[in-house]
Amino acid sequence: MIKRPVIIDTDPGIDDALAIAIALFSEELDVKLITTVAGNVSLAHVTDNMLKLLQFWGKDIPVAAGAAKPLIEPLVDASNVHGVTGMEGYEFPEPKRELLVKEHAVNAMYRVIMESEEPITLVPIAPLTNIALLFSMYPEVKGKIKEVVLMGGSASRGNKGVMSEFNVATDPEAAKIVFDSGVPMVMAGLDVGWKALVYPEDSEKMLGMGKTGEMAYCLFKKYRGGSFSTGLKMYDSCAIAYLLCPELFTVEDTYVAIELAGSMTRGCTLVDLKHYLKQDANVKVCLDIDGEKFRKWFLEAVSRCI
Amino acid sequence: MIKRPVIIDTDPGIDDALAIAIALFSEELDVKLITTVAGNVSLAHVTDNMLKLLQFWGKDIPVAAGAAKPLIEPLVDASNVHGVTGMEGYEFPEPKRELLVKEHAVNAMYRVIMESEEPITLVPIAPLTNIALLFSMYPEVKGKIKEVVLMGGSASRGNKGVMSEFNVATDPEAAKIVFDSGVPMVMAGLDVGWKALVYPEDSEKMLGMGKTGEMAYCLFKKYRGGSFSTGLKMYDSCAIAYLLCPELFTVEDTYVAIELAGSMTRGCTLVDLKHYLKQDANVKVCLDIDGEKFRKWFLEAVSRCI
Amino acid sequence: MIKRPVIIDTDPGIDDALAIAIALFSEELDVKLITTVAGNVSLAHVTDNMLKLLQFWGKDIPVAAGAAKPLIEPLVDASNVHGVTGMEGYEFPEPKRELLVKEHAVNAMYRVIMESEEPITLVPIAPLTNIALLFSMYPEVKGKIKEVVLMGGSASRGNKGVMSEFNVATDPEAAKIVFDSGVPMVMAGLDVGWKALVYPEDSEKMLGMGKTGEMAYCLFKKYRGGSFSTGLKMYDSCAIAYLLCPELFTVEDTYVAIELAGSMTRGCTLVDLKHYLKQDANVKVCLDIDGEKFRKWFLEAVSRCI
Amino acid sequence: MIKRPVIIDTDPGIDDALAIAIALFSEELDVKLITTVAGNVSLAHVTDNMLKLLQFWGKDIPVAAGAAKPLIEPLVDASNVHGVTGMEGYEFPEPKRELLVKEHAVNAMYRVIMESEEPITLVPIAPLTNIALLFSMYPEVKGKIKEVVLMGGSASRGNKGVMSEFNVATDPEAAKIVFDSGVPMVMAGLDVGWKALVYPEDSEKMLGMGKTGEMAYCLFKKYRGGSFSTGLKMYDSCAIAYLLCPELFTVEDTYVAIELAGSMTRGCTLVDLKHYLKQDANVKVCLDIDGEKFRKWFLEAVSRCI
Repeated sequence: MIKRPVIIDTDPGIDDALAIAIALFSEELDVKLITTVAGNVSLAHVTDNMLKLLQFWGKDIPVAAGAAKPLIEPLVDASNVHGVTGMEGYEFPEPKRELLVKEHAVNAMYRVIMESEEPITLVPIAPLTNIALLFSMYPEVKGKIKEVVLMGGSASRGNKGVMSEFNVATDPEAAKIVFDSGVPMVMAGLDVGWKALVYPEDSEKMLGMGKTGEMAYCLFKKYRGGSFSTGLKMYDSCAIAYLLCPELFTVEDTYVAIELAGSMTRGCTLVDLKHYLKQDANVKVCLDIDGEKFRKWFLEAVSRCI
Repeated sequence: MIKRPVIIDTDPGIDDALAIAIALFSEELDVKLITTVAGNVSLAHVTDNMLKLLQFWGKDIPVAAGAAKPLIEPLVDASNVHGVTGMEGYEFPEPKRELLVKEHAVNAMYRVIMESEEPITLVPIAPLTNIALLFSMYPEVKGKIKEVVLMGGSASRGNKGVMSEFNVATDPEAAKIVFDSGVPMVMAGLDVGWKALVYPEDSEKMLGMGKTGEMAYCLFKKYRGGSFSTGLKMYDSCAIAYLLCPELFTVEDTYVAIELAGSMTRGCTLVDLKHYLKQDANVKVCLDIDGEKFRKWFLEAVSRCI
Repeated sequence: MIKRPVIIDTDPGIDDALAIAIALFSEELDVKLITTVAGNVSLAHVTDNMLKLLQFWGKDIPVAAGAAKPLIEPLVDASNVHGVTGMEGYEFPEPKRELLVKEHAVNAMYRVIMESEEPITLVPIAPLTNIALLFSMYPEVKGKIKEVVLMGGSASRGNKGVMSEFNVATDPEAAKIVFDSGVPMVMAGLDVGWKALVYPEDSEKMLGMGKTGEMAYCLFKKYRGGSFSTGLKMYDSCAIAYLLCPELFTVEDTYVAIELAGSMTRGCTLVDLKHYLKQDANVKVCLDIDGEKFRKWFLEAVSRCI
Repeated sequence: MIKRPVIIDTDPGIDDALAIAIALFSEELDVKLITTVAGNVSLAHVTDNMLKLLQFWGKDIPVAAGAAKPLIEPLVDASNVHGVTGMEGYEFPEPKRELLVKEHAVNAMYRVIMESEEPITLVPIAPLTNIALLFSMYPEVKGKIKEVVLMGGSASRGNKGVMSEFNVATDPEAAKIVFDSGVPMVMAGLDVGWKALVYPEDSEKMLGMGKTGEMAYCLFKKYRGGSFSTGLKMYDSCAIAYLLCPELFTVEDTYVAIELAGSMTRGCTLVDLKHYLKQDANVKVCLDIDGEKFRKWFLEAVSRCI
């Protein structure tokens, strides 16, 4: 079987760590490159976290650091959700610094995409700053990308503002550039993230699943994306789940626009299910997920991360 | 028992007609005045419709005509939902023109409110233009209003735009004036309107309930607020239901803001359940309704409109 | 000669006082009504000021009080320019309270306009809240208004914000309602107000011109609309000057739009001299004034206010 | 004398051509790199034009092509001003393609800036897309830039919209990134560009000044930035004039903000001369220019381009 070549753009982050684990240990995905971007915490922290994770897993994937802040907005991180370093609660080994390439993430993505024979799938599970810079600098990559499968946005309410989701609202201009790019897109946002829950009994099971499960258990104790007792939200794993197990999702081809100008709705993703805006569909939006099946899939996937 | 004095501000409209019927035949409400405003269709049509309804029911309530268009927006009506005249599908008697007072709706409301010994409850089931003009012209009425119980807004998605509800988005500036007024408010919006459904078997039952039921049946055959076969949305009756049967609703005290500036989110009601905007609650928002109990209540209420 | 019937809508204010004096003592104008609105200072202060001025001049013009705040914006006054009471620096007689009519300014304007045989000229030298309410409540008046000659707006920079003028930016929604109304309009804004200067030698001359001149001298010592030594800006007198002496002005028929949505340009008047917006002209914009001739005219006019 | 190292970012364009000529033939400037960006016409055209100009002058400066469109806005060019190719009216030699480096303009700028011992001066006379990408990708360059001396913006009215200048309004997000960057900036905008005029007698003189003068004469016959008979606007040469002859300008240290959200004021530069926005100065704004001296300087400068 030919593995599907992907680039993961990330800001780990506790739920990022699990999503990346599943991707790295998957038989179907070939992670060509991991790029980092400021988001959950600072660029320095997320890059360090990524290099620690690769050391921890013994995986030699090149890492390229990208944008240190959103295009226009100042960086307002989510250290309230992930802890100050972004991955608090576990003693990781030292970062494997030799995996860090010298290139900027955007140039590294460009190179990998252009050199690849197979069209690449981009998997951003972070603010879209790097991807927006990539498309702005190198529009020629668009034809060589299979699709962008991202975690972000919402068809209803938000988790950063009343109507805005964290990854999109952290860099709304970047999101607009990406959503308007014409590249095939899949959006796994809050509509599924809020139902992709891990319960205490799942966390307990993971504790016995080897190093990744144990790590997850420790991080989950600190994670504020939901509550340990009533369900932790595995936002980022939804994007990976879509790649590996799309049948978990209810998906609709829809026009999605990014609001930039609102005084309180900046960063809102307008998922135009009823065609008010009279535009062609540009995004496959994940509107629902089978939460039970997701849990099962997730536990099984984590158990393989050894 | 002392009846609760109310002023209904309306733009009938098929679902308005039913809501008004229930209010007029209720034992608990004393409808002091009905004011009309452009919305579902033009001011001339809605005022005519109101006077026809009063003739039809034989009720002598003074009617005052108000604003012919939103404060700033041009009028974009909902004749696609209610038919060209706003109440198509039934042969009404001629309008009872002698009920139309000479005063502007805003002056009539002012007079009734200031003359009333009991604080008045305002029940706008239309765009909020008249109420906004009232508060702008006569801020002194605010202290004499018990509460504003309105149909409008949404805590999630919209029915006029992706994120905006018809009554609020038809005159967003008016909505902002009313929501920011400091007057106690109850918002019965799409979150409950979409669940306040009448099914074909209900419509059939209504056919045998006397003149109002028969009229409703005929109008419902033309109404495009939902579908006759899968459920018609009784938006406006939600506001009346809240007055008469508040236990049907799940309500939360919340800060609600009106977005004016968004390029695609203008007229969005931001229902700030998670306190992102750090403001004090200004509205009791109806977040849920017991749809089954509502249907029962609604049928019983209509059966009394004879 | 038939005098031209006018209604002055005002928020006195030092420069308002002089403009009103000139209008009241003019042979050509018949001031039918004076309406007040919150602006330079609170509604209570400006109404009091107006009644004091009429007592001072012995003129029996009916006064009607209007809106106490802008439609949407909170009131941010200009007491830094006009002093706390709005007319500091002179000992006025007690307000002539019997001139205050019971009606709201908007209803009084409506009545006067509809009863007048001649079309009325509206002269707003204040935020446009009252006029916007008038047009919203009673659109039928539009056909009976000769023109609106207002002080407000700017074709270039601002005096309340970087690009926004005080009267327009104090109530931008009201301005939009008025500018979009279709009623013939003349805009005398900062482009002429900044050149309608009174110098120290003029003020000295006015001191010997009788009671109005003396009053003006005293008020001017306190006025912060410019500087006593380098030139005081007679903004509001420009509107009256346009009525009485239009040859002072360079005027252009232009489309003028009001920006509502800008984060820093809210209340900007876009004077579209180059047709970027591709709209028909709706306003005669005073782009220039002959400052020398204005001074001469102004002094002569004030000398007649006895 | 040590020449001042500069990078010119440009979209030639007729007035760009003259500005670049003056820079290339100046004794004081060392043009290290020329980068191109879509603006006056498409990226392909402006890059071609730049390579033709270098062939024409026999100057071997490396050229790097940059962004093909603004960050968010679609490209709306100014071919109405400069002709379809951007430099119509003169028969240029073939482009000197070997000067085109393989790197993206942003990477080329980064390399030149980081390798330079002297801090570099950036001279953007085009939309700011490339500079915004540079600052977003490589914030570390900010400390190695002496200043950004740009042509763009306005302290009053616009030339692309009522209140917006072409270079800024073509890519408002890029402008905001650059103006907010903290790098020392000089803005030579419409306030000086409109007074930096070349008259017919100047053009005639240039005809006898050798190849650059002759070329200028031919291009000027086609140029629509002003009128040949009443004065052609040398916008871009203002930025070069500031570098070589700053005493021509009246400059003020001011806070300048970029409006992104306005419905009609998007791309407006708010030059806050009166401190309404209460921010520290971030830009030296050229508010005035001595037009007579500029003409003299310009003619002399062109005469040296041989």
